[in-house]
Amino acid sequence: MSTFGHLFRVTTFGESHCASVGAIIDGCPPGLELSAEDIQIQLSRRRPGQSNLTTPRNEKDLVHLQSGLEHGVTLGTPIALLVKNEDQRPHDYSETDLYPRPSHADYTYLEKYGVKASSGGGRSSARETVGRVAAGAIAEKYLKIAYGIEIVAFVSSVGKIHLPSTATATNSDDDNDDAPDPLSPEFRKLLDTITREQVDSHPTRCPHPETAERMTKRIIRAKDAQDSIGGTVTCVIRNVPSGLGEPVFNKFEATLAHAMLSIPATKAFEIGSGFRGTEVPGSAHNDPFIQRPDGSLGTLTNWSGGIQGGITNGESIYFRIGFKSPATISQAQPTAQYDGTPGSLAARGRHDPCVVPRAVPIVEAMAALVVMDQLLIQNSRRAARELLPPITTLPPTMVLPKKQGKVEEKEGGSA
Amino acid sequence: MSTFGHLFRVTTFGESHCASVGAIIDGCPPGLELSAEDIQIQLSRRRPGQSNLTTPRNEKDLVHLQSGLEHGVTLGTPIALLVKNEDQRPHDYSETDLYPRPSHADYTYLEKYGVKASSGGGRSSARETVGRVAAGAIAEKYLKIAYGIEIVAFVSSVGKIHLPSTATATNSDDDNDDAPDPLSPEFRKLLDTITREQVDSHPTRCPHPETAERMTKRIIRAKDAQDSIGGTVTCVIRNVPSGLGEPVFNKFEATLAHAMLSIPATKAFEIGSGFRGTEVPGSAHNDPFIQRPDGSLGTLTNWSGGIQGGITNGESIYFRIGFKSPATISQAQPTAQYDGTPGSLAARGRHDPCVVPRAVPIVEAMAALVVMDQLLIQNSRRAARELLPPITTLPPTMVLPKKQGKVEEKEGGSA
Amino acid sequence: MSTFGHLFRVTTFGESHCASVGAIIDGCPPGLELSAEDIQIQLSRRRPGQSNLTTPRNEKDLVHLQSGLEHGVTLGTPIALLVKNEDQRPHDYSETDLYPRPSHADYTYLEKYGVKASSGGGRSSARETVGRVAAGAIAEKYLKIAYGIEIVAFVSSVGKIHLPSTATATNSDDDNDDAPDPLSPEFRKLLDTITREQVDSHPTRCPHPETAERMTKRIIRAKDAQDSIGGTVTCVIRNVPSGLGEPVFNKFEATLAHAMLSIPATKAFEIGSGFRGTEVPGSAHNDPFIQRPDGSLGTLTNWSGGIQGGITNGESIYFRIGFKSPATISQAQPTAQYDGTPGSLAARGRHDPCVVPRAVPIVEAMAALVVMDQLLIQNSRRAARELLPPITTLPPTMVLPKKQGKVEEKEGGSA
Amino acid sequence: MSTFGHLFRVTTFGESHCASVGAIIDGCPPGLELSAEDIQIQLSRRRPGQSNLTTPRNEKDLVHLQSGLEHGVTLGTPIALLVKNEDQRPHDYSETDLYPRPSHADYTYLEKYGVKASSGGGRSSARETVGRVAAGAIAEKYLKIAYGIEIVAFVSSVGKIHLPSTATATNSDDDNDDAPDPLSPEFRKLLDTITREQVDSHPTRCPHPETAERMTKRIIRAKDAQDSIGGTVTCVIRNVPSGLGEPVFNKFEATLAHAMLSIPATKAFEIGSGFRGTEVPGSAHNDPFIQRPDGSLGTLTNWSGGIQGGITNGESIYFRIGFKSPATISQAQPTAQYDGTPGSLAARGRHDPCVVPRAVPIVEAMAALVVMDQLLIQNSRRAARELLPPITTLPPTMVLPKKQGKVEEKEGGSA
Repeated sequence: MSTFGHLFRVTTFGESHCASVGAIIDGCPPGLELSAEDIQIQLSRRRPGQSNLTTPRNEKDLVHLQSGLEHGVTLGTPIALLVKNEDQRPHDYSETDLYPRPSHADYTYLEKYGVKASSGGGRSSARETVGRVAAGAIAEKYLKIAYGIEIVAFVSSVGKIHLPSTATATNSDDDNDDAPDPLSPEFRKLLDTITREQVDSHPTRCPHPETAERMTKRIIRAKDAQDSIGGTVTCVIRNVPSGLGEPVFNKFEATLAHAMLSIPATKAFEIGSGFRGTEVPGSAHNDPFIQRPDGSLGTLTNWSGGIQGGITNGESIYFRIGFKSPATISQAQPTAQYDGTPGSLAARGRHDPCVVPRAVPIVEAMAALVVMDQLLIQNSRRAARELLPPITTLPPTMVLPKKQGKVEEKEGGSA
Repeated sequence: MSTFGHLFRVTTFGESHCASVGAIIDGCPPGLELSAEDIQIQLSRRRPGQSNLTTPRNEKDLVHLQSGLEHGVTLGTPIALLVKNEDQRPHDYSETDLYPRPSHADYTYLEKYGVKASSGGGRSSARETVGRVAAGAIAEKYLKIAYGIEIVAFVSSVGKIHLPSTATATNSDDDNDDAPDPLSPEFRKLLDTITREQVDSHPTRCPHPETAERMTKRIIRAKDAQDSIGGTVTCVIRNVPSGLGEPVFNKFEATLAHAMLSIPATKAFEIGSGFRGTEVPGSAHNDPFIQRPDGSLGTLTNWSGGIQGGITNGESIYFRIGFKSPATISQAQPTAQYDGTPGSLAARGRHDPCVVPRAVPIVEAMAALVVMDQLLIQNSRRAARELLPPITTLPPTMVLPKKQGKVEEKEGGSA
Repeated sequence: MSTFGHLFRVTTFGESHCASVGAIIDGCPPGLELSAEDIQIQLSRRRPGQSNLTTPRNEKDLVHLQSGLEHGVTLGTPIALLVKNEDQRPHDYSETDLYPRPSHADYTYLEKYGVKASSGGGRSSARETVGRVAAGAIAEKYLKIAYGIEIVAFVSSVGKIHLPSTATATNSDDDNDDAPDPLSPEFRKLLDTITREQVDSHPTRCPHPETAERMTKRIIRAKDAQDSIGGTVTCVIRNVPSGLGEPVFNKFEATLAHAMLSIPATKAFEIGSGFRGTEVPGSAHNDPFIQRPDGSLGTLTNWSGGIQGGITNGESIYFRIGFKSPATISQAQPTAQYDGTPGSLAARGRHDPCVVPRAVPIVEAMAALVVMDQLLIQNSRRAARELLPPITTLPPTMVLPKKQGKVEEKEGGSA
Repeated sequence: MSTFGHLFRVTTFGESHCASVGAIIDGCPPGLELSAEDIQIQLSRRRPGQSNLTTPRNEKDLVHLQSGLEHGVTLGTPIALLVKNEDQRPHDYSETDLYPRPSHADYTYLEKYGVKASSGGGRSSARETVGRVAAGAIAEKYLKIAYGIEIVAFVSSVGKIHLPSTATATNSDDDNDDAPDPLSPEFRKLLDTITREQVDSHPTRCPHPETAERMTKRIIRAKDAQDSIGGTVTCVIRNVPSGLGEPVFNKFEATLAHAMLSIPATKAFEIGSGFRGTEVPGSAHNDPFIQRPDGSLGTLTNWSGGIQGGITNGESIYFRIGFKSPATISQAQPTAQYDGTPGSLAARGRHDPCVVPRAVPIVEAMAALVVMDQLLIQNSRRAARELLPPITTLPPTMVLPKKQGKVEEKEGGSA
C-alpha cells in the first residue's frame, strides 16, 4: 500500500509520466509553523540535474501546498502537496515496449497488475520519492523544534570505495573494501558531529574529501562506460528520546528497516554494529552502562546503535543501507522480450549512473517519518501513564521513579 | 504493537514469567486441515534444551489450540493457541533488581513503560517468539498445500566461521570471513535443493558438515568462556508466485526486512546480492531475462533475490539475517546500576551462548507470515481484475495477455 | 484519521478555504476504464447551487485527475484527484471570530487542535465530502461492471414529512410522522426498482411526487424563516454477492453505520427493520428461507436488510440515515462567545436550509466504498479457499458444495 | 476482522463450542492496578443464567488472565485472557444440519467461509462478546481512575414498552410507543444521575420500576409463546474530555456506531437527538453555548449528544441502540433446507427470549473501548502540540489560549 505510518501517516501518489506526484500527510501536529521553503530545501537536494554525477532529467520540483495550513501554521488536518511532472518525454521509453528491462520493475509490475504504465515500472520510479521527501521535511521540522532531533545521512561507499573508519586516514589503494568500523573513535566522532552542510560540500555527499574525490572518479568511470555502480548511505539520528519503538513487531529497528528497504534500489540494511557485530563475542559487544553528566544512564560504547530490545535508549541511532547499481544502463545487454524471444536491449532515456548522492535526502526523510510516528505512539502511552496514581504494589526497582515527564523536558521545547 | 500482517494477522502475547505465551491468528483460510502436530514440529525445533549448544531452560512447549477449528479443519475464524510457561524460576533474575543488563532490554523497557517485569526485558524475551513460530507453521501448511511453497532457513555463520560459497570446499583456516557468494553456482544449487532434514542433521543447523563442526567448537568455546557469540541465518523461499509485494511502502523486501528485524537480537538484513551487490557494476549485476521451459520468463542469474521493484518475479527469494552475540553472559561485566552507581554484573539464569541454531524456525515462521499476507492481498487484486472485460484502449504491450489466472495453476493446488 | 478502508483505501484532504479538496484512492483494481466524466456525474449531483433549495455557494467542482491512469485505464496505482476551491470568500465567516457557532464544529475543532481554520469547523465542512464522492464514483463504476451492483439513495423525509409506505397513498395531513414500513409490499417494490433518474426527477430527490412537493414547501418555509430543517435518506444496494462482511468487529452493517455516521450532520442509522424491528416478535421478524428460481436460497421477507450475522445474504441491503437540521442559520441565536460572554449570533455566509437532497450522492458514495472494500477482502479469502483440496473430515452439511466460485458467476462479469 | 481499535487494540477469539473464548488487549497503559475481579464483575453481568428472563445455559464464565500483569499491575504489554466453554452440549444444535435457521447466521457463515461450525453461526454467537466485555472492563477501570469517566447503559424499551420520557409518569396503556424525549428535563436528569446499581436493581435493567415490571411481563409472554422480543438499550458516558474523535472518517459518533452495530442482533443506532432530531428546525435543535461555573464553555441543551463535528464537546454523550428479536425461537417456523427443500424448523437448544438485559454490559464495554482508543489518539496529538512554541502568526481568536493541558486536570487524576 502507499501509506506509511500509524499516527503520522503519509500516502504518496504518482508515477513519472502522470500530471503530478505528491502526498497527503495526515496527523501532523497542529500549530507548527511551516512554509513551502521548509519542504523545498529537501526536494531540491533530491531533484535530478544537480551535478554531472546525476541524471540530466531536469525537474524544478516546486512544491504546491494544497491544504492543512493557514497563515503558515498547520491546522492538524491533512496536508496535501504536489509537484508537477514537467519534463516527461514519454517517448524515451518506447524501447521497452518489447523488452522488460533487466532487474527493473517492468516485468513484475505487469505480472502484478496485468497492465503497466508506459514508463514501465510505474511507481517503482525514484520519482515517487518526491512525496516521501516532502513529508519527511515536515516531520523533521517538528522533530527539530520540539526535541532538537538531528538527522544526517551521507554517502559511505561507492562501489568498493569506502569512507575510511579513521577520518584522518589516507587510503592509498583504490579500493578500501571495508565498511567503517563502528568501534573506531573517529567514526563515532563523525556520527556525533556531522552536519548537512559538511555532507553537501561535495557533490558525492561523502564527508571525507579524499574519498569523495575517488568516488567521483568511480562514478564518472561508470558513466563513461555506459554502466552504473552502487553504494551505501549511512545515517545518524541524534537526540532521540529513550522509550521509542513498539514491541514486538514494530521494534524501532524493524520499522526503520522497513522504511529503508522501501526506498527504490535498496538491498541491505544494518543497525549499529550490523553484520560485523555478529562476529564479536558478547563480552566485547555489550555496551556497558555509565552515568551521564546529567545523572541519567548512557552507554560507554554504542554497538547497539541506540536501540536495545527494539526500544531507543537515548544514544545516537545509526544505520547503513546498501543501494544496488542502477538497473538502467545505456550499454546493450543480452536478454529476452516479454514473449521470450532472445535479444539485446540498450536503455535510452536519462538515468543516474549512481543513485547514492541523491538518495541522501530520501534516507533522511524516511528516518524522520519513522521517528515521528514512533514518537507520537509513545507520547500517547506516556500521557496515559501520567494520569495514574503511584504504584504501591510493585518493588521499587520495577518502577521508573517519576521520570516519565522526561521526554518533554528536552531543551528543544521552548525554542 | 503486537500484531503483524493485514489479512493474515498474528497477534502474540506473553512474556517469560506469566501463565502462558501464545497468539491469535486471524484470517487463516477456511477449510485447511490442521492439527496440533503441524504446529508442534516447528515449536519443538525452536524450544530450548534441544542440545548442549542451547540453554538448559527446559520447556516442553506443548501447544494448546483454543478456537477456530472443528474436526481438524479451520473455520476461517481466529485460531487462538497457547503454550504454558512451566519452567519459570523467576528468582534467577533477582540480580537485575539493581542493574540493567548491558545491551539487554531491561533499561529500555523501564524507560518505555515506567514499570518492568521481574524478568527484566519482558516481551523482548525469545520466549515471545513461540506465538510467531506457531502462527508461521499454520501459514506454511497452507502455502505448501496451495502453492507448493518451500521455506528453508539454515545457519550460514557463527562468529567469523562462514559457510563456504563452494559446498565442496574445505576451509583449512579457522576463520572464513566472507559471506557466501550469491553468484557461485554451488551456493545457488544449495538454495535450490536444501531441505529441513539436511539442516537438522547437525545441531548447529549448518548444512555443511565440516563447517558445522567448526561452528560447534566455536560455540562451545564461547560457552566455556562464559561468553557468547553471534552469527547469521540464510533463508530461501522457493515457488513463490510472481506479483507479490505492495508498492510502494510494503515492497516485498521491505516487509521481509521488517519481519526479520523484529526477531530478537537481529542487527542486519540483506536480500539477494545485499551489501556485496553495491560493489558490482550494473552491467554485471543485472539479471538477464530468459525463457523458461514452460514458456514463462525467468532470469539467468538471481542477484535480485527473486524481487524486482519490490515485487516477486517468480525466482527463489533468499536473504540473510545477522544476529548479534547474546547480551546475557555469565562473566562479570563492569557497568552501572539504574541509579548510576558503577559496579560489576555477572548474569545468572540460563541462556544460549549462540542463538542462531534456534533462530532457524523463527526465521522460517516470519518468512511464512510475510508470504502469506502478501499472497492474500495480491489474490484480492487478481480476483478483482479477472472480472473486468478485456482492455481495448491500451497498446497490447501494456497489457498482460490473460495470464492472471496463473497463480491458481500452480501444481500444489490439487495436492 | 482521514483514511477509510483496508484494501480499497480512500484518503481525503482539504477544507473549504484552502487551495483544493480531493483524495487519493489506493487499491483500485487495475484495468478499469475510467474517465473524469465517470466521476464528474456524481460530483455534479453533490455540488452546491443546483437549485433554489440549496446553498447559493457556486462551485463548478471540476475534477482534475493526477495519477493512476494511462490512456483512460487504471494502473492499479494510487489515483489522486483534486477539485479547486474557486469561490472561497473567506470574509463571510468573520463573525465567528468571537462566537463559536452553536452546534457547529468551531468550538470542538479549537478544543481538539488548539488552532482553527478561519472557516471555523475546518474539515467538518460538507466540502470535505468532494473527495469521498469522487472515490465512491470510482468504486461504483467497478461494482457495476464486475457485479452489476446498483446503489440508489433517495430522500425519505424532510422534517415530519415522510415518504409514505404505500407508494399509491395520498397523505392528506401535512405531517406523516412515520418512517416507511419495510414490510409493506409497495416499499419493497420501490427498493427493488428505483433508479437515479427517478430520484433526480425532482429537486428534493424524493421519488414520490406529491411528497416531494410537500418537502419542497417545507424547505422553502425553513429558508424563508432563516431557519433550517433535517430529514432522512434511504439507500438500497442491489445485487450484492452473499458472504461479504467481516466477523466480528467489521460486520457489514457495522462498517456501513461507521461510513454513514462519518457524513457531516448525521445522527442516526438503521439497517433493515431498524428500530421498528425491535418491537416485532421473532416469529414475525424472522425471514424464512425460500428457494430462488435459480436454485439458490433467498428469503421470503427481508427484515434483515440483506445482512444476517453481519454477513450479506444476497438480498437487497437497505438502510436509512437521519440528518439533523443544519446548524448554520441566519436568524439571531442567543449563545456565548469563546470567552463565555453571553450574546447573540446570526450566521452570515451561504448555507443549505436542508442538506438531504445534496446528501444523496454522498450516501451512495460511502455505500460504494463499504461494498468495494468488503468485496476485496472476501475475494481474497475465497481465492485462498479455492486452492485447497476438498475437505474429507467434516460432515457434508458443514461444507459448502463447490459454490465458492459463485461470486464470479454474476452476470455483470462479461458486461 | 476480529480486532477493534488503533492504540487500545482488542482482538477476540472463540465460538460457542470450542475450548475457550477470550481476547488479547494490546496497548493498555502500564502501571494500572488490575485484578481478575475488576473484569469478573462485568462478565457476571453478561453471563447467561442470571434470572428467569435469560437463557438457562449456565456458564460460570471465570476469567483466566494469561499475561501482561505482574503483582497486580499492568506492564503495558498485551493482556491475554480466556474463559473456558464448560457447558457446551453440542448436540442441541443437530437440527441445524439440514436447515439454516431463519435470520440467524448459519447460512451466511457457510456462504462466507465454505465451512461452518457445528453451532451454526460460529462467531456470530453472543458468546463471542465475552472477550469484548472483559476488554471493556479494563478500559473502564483506566477511564474511571484517570478521568472519572462513567459509563452506564440501561434498557429503554422491550417491544413496544418504552421507558417514559418523564421519570414520574405512570403509563397506563400497555404500549408506550415513543422513545424517551431527549429534550425532557426528567430524561436529562436521568442521564446525569443514573448508576449501575440502579440499573441492576431490576432483572430487566430498566431503571423505571413500573416500566420494568411491564417489560418483565412482556418477556415472559414471549417466552411462554416460544417466541422472542426485541428492545433498545440507551447508554450515557459522563465526564468525557472535549476534543476526542478523529475527523473525518473516525468521527466519535461514527466509531461509536461502528462499535455498537458490531454487537450481535443490533439493527439501529442514534446519537443525541437521533431520528427525532431530523424533524426539529435548526433554531430549536441548536445547543446554545453557556459559560459553566468553572469558566469553560458548555451547552444549555444537549441535542448534540456531546458531539459536534464528530468531536466531543465535554457534555454527556448518550445514544440508543436497537436490538432485534432473537432469531432463535422454539416454535416451528416454515422455511427451507440448505438444498431448498421446504419444511419447518423448531429450534432446540437454549436461548434468550429477549437479549437487552444481558446486552447492557456489552454496550458499556464497547463504549469504553471507543472512548479509550480515541482518548489515546488525542493524547498523542495534545502531547505533540504542547512541545511547540507559541504561535505568533495567527489571529488570537484562532488559537486556544494555553488550555491544552485541560485533559489532565480532571479530578480523577489523583484518585
